[in-house]
Amino acid sequence: MKTLRHEEEDVVKPEKLHVGIIGAGRIGRVHAESLAFRLPESRIVAITDVSPAAAEQVAARCGIPRVAASSAEILADPAIQAVLICSSTDTHATLITQAAQADKHIFCEKPIAFCLHQIDAALAAVKQAGVKLQIGFNRRFDANFMRVRHAIQTGEIGAPSLMHIISRDPAPPPLDYIRVSGGIFTDMTIHDFDMARFLIGDEVEEIYTAAGVMVDPEIGKLGDLDTALTVLRFRNGVIGTIDNSRRAAYGYDQRVEVLGSKGKIATENCYPNQAVVSTAQSVYSDLPLNFFMERYQASFTSELASFVAAVLEDKDTAVTGQDGRAPVVMALAARKSFEERRPVRLAEVG
Amino acid sequence: MKTLRHEEEDVVKPEKLHVGIIGAGRIGRVHAESLAFRLPESRIVAITDVSPAAAEQVAARCGIPRVAASSAEILADPAIQAVLICSSTDTHATLITQAAQADKHIFCEKPIAFCLHQIDAALAAVKQAGVKLQIGFNRRFDANFMRVRHAIQTGEIGAPSLMHIISRDPAPPPLDYIRVSGGIFTDMTIHDFDMARFLIGDEVEEIYTAAGVMVDPEIGKLGDLDTALTVLRFRNGVIGTIDNSRRAAYGYDQRVEVLGSKGKIATENCYPNQAVVSTAQSVYSDLPLNFFMERYQASFTSELASFVAAVLEDKDTAVTGQDGRAPVVMALAARKSFEERRPVRLAEVG
Amino acid sequence: MKTLRHEEEDVVKPEKLHVGIIGAGRIGRVHAESLAFRLPESRIVAITDVSPAAAEQVAARCGIPRVAASSAEILADPAIQAVLICSSTDTHATLITQAAQADKHIFCEKPIAFCLHQIDAALAAVKQAGVKLQIGFNRRFDANFMRVRHAIQTGEIGAPSLMHIISRDPAPPPLDYIRVSGGIFTDMTIHDFDMARFLIGDEVEEIYTAAGVMVDPEIGKLGDLDTALTVLRFRNGVIGTIDNSRRAAYGYDQRVEVLGSKGKIATENCYPNQAVVSTAQSVYSDLPLNFFMERYQASFTSELASFVAAVLEDKDTAVTGQDGRAPVVMALAARKSFEERRPVRLAEVG
Amino acid sequence: MKTLRHEEEDVVKPEKLHVGIIGAGRIGRVHAESLAFRLPESRIVAITDVSPAAAEQVAARCGIPRVAASSAEILADPAIQAVLICSSTDTHATLITQAAQADKHIFCEKPIAFCLHQIDAALAAVKQAGVKLQIGFNRRFDANFMRVRHAIQTGEIGAPSLMHIISRDPAPPPLDYIRVSGGIFTDMTIHDFDMARFLIGDEVEEIYTAAGVMVDPEIGKLGDLDTALTVLRFRNGVIGTIDNSRRAAYGYDQRVEVLGSKGKIATENCYPNQAVVSTAQSVYSDLPLNFFMERYQASFTSELASFVAAVLEDKDTAVTGQDGRAPVVMALAARKSFEERRPVRLAEVG
Repeated sequence: MKTLRHEEEDVVKPEKLHVGIIGAGRIGRVHAESLAFRLPESRIVAITDVSPAAAEQVAARCGIPRVAASSAEILADPAIQAVLICSSTDTHATLITQAAQADKHIFCEKPIAFCLHQIDAALAAVKQAGVKLQIGFNRRFDANFMRVRHAIQTGEIGAPSLMHIISRDPAPPPLDYIRVSGGIFTDMTIHDFDMARFLIGDEVEEIYTAAGVMVDPEIGKLGDLDTALTVLRFRNGVIGTIDNSRRAAYGYDQRVEVLGSKGKIATENCYPNQAVVSTAQSVYSDLPLNFFMERYQASFTSELASFVAAVLEDKDTAVTGQDGRAPVVMALAARKSFEERRPVRLAEVG
Repeated sequence: MKTLRHEEEDVVKPEKLHVGIIGAGRIGRVHAESLAFRLPESRIVAITDVSPAAAEQVAARCGIPRVAASSAEILADPAIQAVLICSSTDTHATLITQAAQADKHIFCEKPIAFCLHQIDAALAAVKQAGVKLQIGFNRRFDANFMRVRHAIQTGEIGAPSLMHIISRDPAPPPLDYIRVSGGIFTDMTIHDFDMARFLIGDEVEEIYTAAGVMVDPEIGKLGDLDTALTVLRFRNGVIGTIDNSRRAAYGYDQRVEVLGSKGKIATENCYPNQAVVSTAQSVYSDLPLNFFMERYQASFTSELASFVAAVLEDKDTAVTGQDGRAPVVMALAARKSFEERRPVRLAEVG
Repeated sequence: MKTLRHEEEDVVKPEKLHVGIIGAGRIGRVHAESLAFRLPESRIVAITDVSPAAAEQVAARCGIPRVAASSAEILADPAIQAVLICSSTDTHATLITQAAQADKHIFCEKPIAFCLHQIDAALAAVKQAGVKLQIGFNRRFDANFMRVRHAIQTGEIGAPSLMHIISRDPAPPPLDYIRVSGGIFTDMTIHDFDMARFLIGDEVEEIYTAAGVMVDPEIGKLGDLDTALTVLRFRNGVIGTIDNSRRAAYGYDQRVEVLGSKGKIATENCYPNQAVVSTAQSVYSDLPLNFFMERYQASFTSELASFVAAVLEDKDTAVTGQDGRAPVVMALAARKSFEERRPVRLAEVG
Repeated sequence: MKTLRHEEEDVVKPEKLHVGIIGAGRIGRVHAESLAFRLPESRIVAITDVSPAAAEQVAARCGIPRVAASSAEILADPAIQAVLICSSTDTHATLITQAAQADKHIFCEKPIAFCLHQIDAALAAVKQAGVKLQIGFNRRFDANFMRVRHAIQTGEIGAPSLMHIISRDPAPPPLDYIRVSGGIFTDMTIHDFDMARFLIGDEVEEIYTAAGVMVDPEIGKLGDLDTALTVLRFRNGVIGTIDNSRRAAYGYDQRVEVLGSKGKIATENCYPNQAVVSTAQSVYSDLPLNFFMERYQASFTSELASFVAAVLEDKDTAVTGQDGRAPVVMALAARKSFEERRPVRLAEVG
């Protein structure tokens, strides 16, 4: 990307970042809206999708001037400086490689791939091209979790020793999705694996997982799990747990807690309002924000703002390719631990 | 506004609402951004300000195609269907009248005026023109307060009997602002007078105010107050209080509580995150969202969405001209009560 | 009481305080249990009641060796150093006077009397005898309210400006009680009048009351009120409110909040446990501690511990005779304000 | 204990339970005070301790008529129906056996012993004698944890799937105590093992423990741990965790959370008051109740009330001998899991 950097040296104020979007599904639309309506530093040049109608719809909504016929057309466009890869997971690694070879900066949804070989090939291509890569772990940009990381980084709670992540979905996804998702660890826990590394700022060495099918036997028939408790042992000694359930009857539940030598920090779940009603029956409040689109609305925008700024100001991205690889290794270890009923060192799988 | 309604009859989907903005100060910019970035059903045609540079800046930021030389130019533009009046308070009533005569729908910041004659003249012009008018009491669109009103309207807490509004600013405004603001009741409590009517859904008959200068003696020297406790007696018997202070050291504080025959509903203040830190000294969390721009960000957008929808779908606006007049009457009664140290009936002043 | 003080000079460790109890109703039994089971520094010598059976029952429960035939017998017993006056309100002032004349230290339930002349006569007798007198405003010993007072006294929240007391009963008392209670201000608000003085540490100058019958029309027919909002203006400028309702459907509700120049302190209501349940319907917790016996259990013991210590160690009591008189004056002013629909200065009634 | 039961058949109202106390250390004194001051259904006949001075002191404080020279003297006293074993852990099993043989009902502090053979011998003696035995797992009587168990037993949150116990001490005990305590699992986690069984109402099959020395290296030098995360797998499929740290800088921390098919229930920690202070720096409250004496004050009394009632009314005790054995098995499994870095089935050790 010498071109862009040269341009930056020439102009005082960088141009808007020209972006192409590959994939116009749910997450592609969310990102398109963020860029179009909330990030004036960017400009969407084109969008494409395997369903042209989906791409047309997002283009109309967000004022995107062109619907491209294919990702190849996007990557071939010299006016496009960066691409957002929002297509299905099985295409991520290949598209990263192709985009890097086309000298585009890359924002890619998680996970990069289920297979470490594919990930490593993609990351090698990125490295060789010298382009920027950011992985879509949006929860890092949530105000609550940033506050926790801040407390750890600044020593506000001293040296961390125990960490807990609660991460529960309101309801299981459709069985058709379960069938292709790669399993609970790759599909759901992967966000929490990233969160664990993000909060503690260190690598995990060993994982032990106890899990089961407690929500829906149909999930078990497909070979997946719906309830999992994962114990992480970090290089620096910190012991962490991740509590996952595919069903919390009360709604989406996303909390963390860290104990340190000087104290603890814990975050409550997020609610649509702060009203509390007291009646003759009970003291109650409304259910939490139901799912990730409501809960992480702001962080979806923030992660793109961070990516746009990283490219325009030539800084490191906030979530690197290695940050995309590590949670996949952890997911493999968690699955192996569950299957072999023993703690598994990441070195065994990664 | 027959024109627009005729157009609506002809087309299945209404056109975007074409808007002109009068006033490019802080609130004008907030509204421009909401329309430009978050309300695709609207289109800003032009903006004007007594400072052309301010108008230019907002136009550039929000992609507004034209900076008009004056409000007259805005009102004369046949392509503009609705105007946002965001200029200084002393111009509101006149601009409402002129806009109504120009057959524009009107969104006007509060208060309409300090003087009831001016308000009544403006409302008469609106009525005669048959245009829509919405007053900028944005707090009605806050998720917390909407939840409280919902509890009262649906009977969730039974018949209301006691109501409390806490409304404290983080710090007094500059003395220059105090000098022209019309006083604490017109400037600050007016929002709470509106909230009281909104929540209880009834009119206030009598007001008693105890107030003083406890924050800054300079405010007292200018003839204003900085701390006020106002007791409201509603027509339906409900007794309410409004607690106002121009300084809450911990930041902006906006809460309400209502007791009813079946229970109570109370809202907590709003905070930037849900993190709680426990150390050897105390259990603490971060300060609340500091001021109205942070706290009411979403409600500023919602009130405009409501206005745009009211015009496009030809519905009543959510905050009427009468809703703009009533709090001014209450402010006059509160001031009179303070001065005469006695409860004052609204009939005496309104 | 020179006798006791002489004894104290002679011995290193004071003897147990020998107590007689006049009145074996609900509050008499509570105090008897505190002395018998939780305050080893005291010894109950005798108890009496207009119903001998009631006195017998408490004596059996608490191991009290003697049931006296009358208060006169208690007051005549030279072995008794202090008396607890727990009989009906109309007997308080007379019994205080008699006890003082009998050289007994006195703990008396609130209110001393409804009539200032009777109060003043009783206090004069106490002063002349030089005995100690403590009034049963037990809420002063509640951990929450002590914490608030501490924040004000130490300057933790700076100079106070606004104060709110919420004090709601779960349900109205029987109409037979209403008939003789002296009215809501003397019966219920009196505790809050004391709390206001206790928290702010200053005297009230003026009171304005808005009140009504919103709970039960039968209460109104008896000439009483069931809902009252009282505004207090303290000598030091602080403005306070007291919110009273004879019915909070969710249970007993006792909270305070004070705003000061450096911040605020607010107390939540008290609950039987800290459990929160989240289901598909709502996030809820159990109702608050239902009434004063549960809520103020600890403070009932603490006030007696304080009284026992004040006598044994010859210190001032925590709640003086003047502290018993002032709230009665405030109750008279509140009633007058309600009747005359205007603010009333305490100097007018006290 | 036929004697007592025969007596009960003869009299309508049972006599007071006559109790002897063995051990006058901290916990012996707490129990003596509960019996003496708060449980009128009991009568302490005698107390003994290896330090006669300690026994004298408690006897004086609690009005116990006799200080016995030895536990043998207590057990030989025909007037004593029940004994409280509050002596050091290494004496528990032997004293249980002796007390059973002496036909006394038994309340014994936890743990019964570190060795399963000793436990089994003691329980066999109890069984043979037909006396009642209750183990001192007082936390079962805490209002919070009883509420959680209630939610599970009644189906309020549906079938449980995940459970978390947080149990952290404010500071490590003295190293001299660590030296003889039997290690963190027997000394500290044992309460949580009991809590886990109590809440879920089922037995644990397998345990995995990750632990370390993160608080004080001196603890590690003594062969003990100070930080431990234990994963429990229950027979019914529930997965649980126990978070233990010997140091929470902010004070004692005792919480649980259970997720079920219909929702979750979670308990907050316990605080000395409900006051929240908001200043220009932060929003804060006082530290939690510092340690178990404050936190579990009420439950210490409740467990004895339960024991006294079980004996007087000839009911099963609330915490049986088997309830005393199971947590010791779990502690052995946890230690073994830590040492062998693998999940350990309870069948391997118990």
